[in-house]
Amino acid sequence: MTVNGRPQAPLMTNTHADRVKEVARLAGRPSRLRRREFLAEGPQAVREALRLHQQRNDDGASGVVIDVYATAEALDRHPDVAALLASDDTPTARLVSPDVLAAMSSTVTPQGFIAVCRFVDSSLDDVLAARPRLVAVLVEVRDPGNAGTIIRAADSAGADAVILTGASVDPYNPKTVRSTVGSLFHLPLVIGAELDGLADRLRAAGLAVLAADGYGSTSLDDLQDASAARRGATRTAGPDLASGAGTSTAEPGGIRTKDSEVRLEQPAAWLFGNEAQGLAQEVSAAADARVAVPIYGRAESLNVGTAATVCLYASARAQR
Amino acid sequence: MTVNGRPQAPLMTNTHADRVKEVARLAGRPSRLRRREFLAEGPQAVREALRLHQQRNDDGASGVVIDVYATAEALDRHPDVAALLASDDTPTARLVSPDVLAAMSSTVTPQGFIAVCRFVDSSLDDVLAARPRLVAVLVEVRDPGNAGTIIRAADSAGADAVILTGASVDPYNPKTVRSTVGSLFHLPLVIGAELDGLADRLRAAGLAVLAADGYGSTSLDDLQDASAARRGATRTAGPDLASGAGTSTAEPGGIRTKDSEVRLEQPAAWLFGNEAQGLAQEVSAAADARVAVPIYGRAESLNVGTAATVCLYASARAQR
Repeated sequence: MTVNGRPQAPLMTNTHADRVKEVARLAGRPSRLRRREFLAEGPQAVREALRLHQQRNDDGASGVVIDVYATAEALDRHPDVAALLASDDTPTARLVSPDVLAAMSSTVTPQGFIAVCRFVDSSLDDVLAARPRLVAVLVEVRDPGNAGTIIRAADSAGADAVILTGASVDPYNPKTVRSTVGSLFHLPLVIGAELDGLADRLRAAGLAVLAADGYGSTSLDDLQDASAARRGATRTAGPDLASGAGTSTAEPGGIRTKDSEVRLEQPAAWLFGNEAQGLAQEVSAAADARVAVPIYGRAESLNVGTAATVCLYASARAQR
Repeated sequence: MTVNGRPQAPLMTNTHADRVKEVARLAGRPSRLRRREFLAEGPQAVREALRLHQQRNDDGASGVVIDVYATAEALDRHPDVAALLASDDTPTARLVSPDVLAAMSSTVTPQGFIAVCRFVDSSLDDVLAARPRLVAVLVEVRDPGNAGTIIRAADSAGADAVILTGASVDPYNPKTVRSTVGSLFHLPLVIGAELDGLADRLRAAGLAVLAADGYGSTSLDDLQDASAARRGATRTAGPDLASGAGTSTAEPGGIRTKDSEVRLEQPAAWLFGNEAQGLAQEVSAAADARVAVPIYGRAESLNVGTAATVCLYASARAQR
């Protein structure tokens, strides 16, 4: 049997095969940690995994995708993924029956594709050495869906990396992988970062450390107003004024940035806290500013994904 | 037995009682629709339900909360909710054993409180008659968690109402109620709005109709820049310039707002589409502008909750 002109192993139909069980076991953390492998499920995630695989191959690094399992119907329906799988530098997909795919999958609707991938995370040293300009730090974020949503939002906002501290949710858990919709393969991810001393390391890498904190004394609105005013002044006065800024506290446009020296257009690392408890006092205190996203209505607090979206987009806009 | 000085019915301990089953059945849609009642679970949701109940009582309208069930431990742990329940104008909580509460609840961790509530939605006519300035419209949004997140984000951004079109998820489903974290009781909600002619009705109510559409030709960034420039010019030139705006296309600050006449500071209704398909072509086409949230990174699309957050906060900031 051939798919896209490449020879295939016979169709796998035995849902009780050892291989099926091994793949399914990657839905559990112990198996993931032991093998340093995880599952990407669905056409979008598998496509992005394969692209990263090719890119790493091109860079001479080790690949990402170990095995791909696909139903014939899914290969028909997603010719772009089939084309990626037909390339010389990606693993050939193994054809499986829908039952086998369902038995391997952690989801109700696996959509015909599963890839077994090597862990893709980076070291904190490597990430910081690349001089990132926008970083999202998840501090003990526990909900798999929230973590995935923030990784995707960080990717959308053009963040250079996402850092998860020690007790945060495992981003290789299938629900998180799924909710990143491929973004897990787009930007460097640091896992298990030690909270102790993290703010100092981020600062040493040239990043302003901003704690997203509903009780913070700095309003994100004020930071955005000040940043917009500086941009407005730059447009009027020419580029010199902007580059000549530095220690002045009286901002063009008549807006003062309080006593804080934080400017939204600076390279920044945003700290986002746990869903229930927010950021711990000592974590917030280690930041350069505790920034509150304004609540204009009657909500008592923001979902951490909502807060992260507003903060990261505010920085992205200001940094452009 | 008394709680907060008020007499209580005896502790309910029989998990098989008819009443327990009736409450539990509200997790299902048929029962909700037949009785026009739904469940609020957990201290936060019950607190906000009771507050709305009191507010409606004060306004001479019919109440929201029909029954409250609570464990003794939860009443101890949340004295503010216990105090609300001890008020003359709210229903008295019925004490239940943890087992009974668990049997009534749709969640794994019901946190000791369940309220049976009357449907709280409003009519489209009433909502539009109140001349809202910021409205979120969920067009066939299907995921209960997404809908709840958007309702909460709309509340945070100070939106005046949320409208769900006909085929959208039922916001009284327990997962949606839970993910609004009380916001369901904060702002008027319209359910089952007919899509046909909706844009015209929104416009007739003085709202610009903005379609959040990844393929839109208007960039949210451009709208924000133009709005910020007008604000900057206002600050310099005094208030007259702002109120005197209208048909000019050359904006102060040197920025032109394309050919669109949309201004972010106008009262607006944002249309957000289905998770998988986005907005249907004809829905998008009926809007005054199709606005794309910029993607600075490599994500292919935005989660609908992320897009809604960025759009609603952009309007809220511009409207201040």
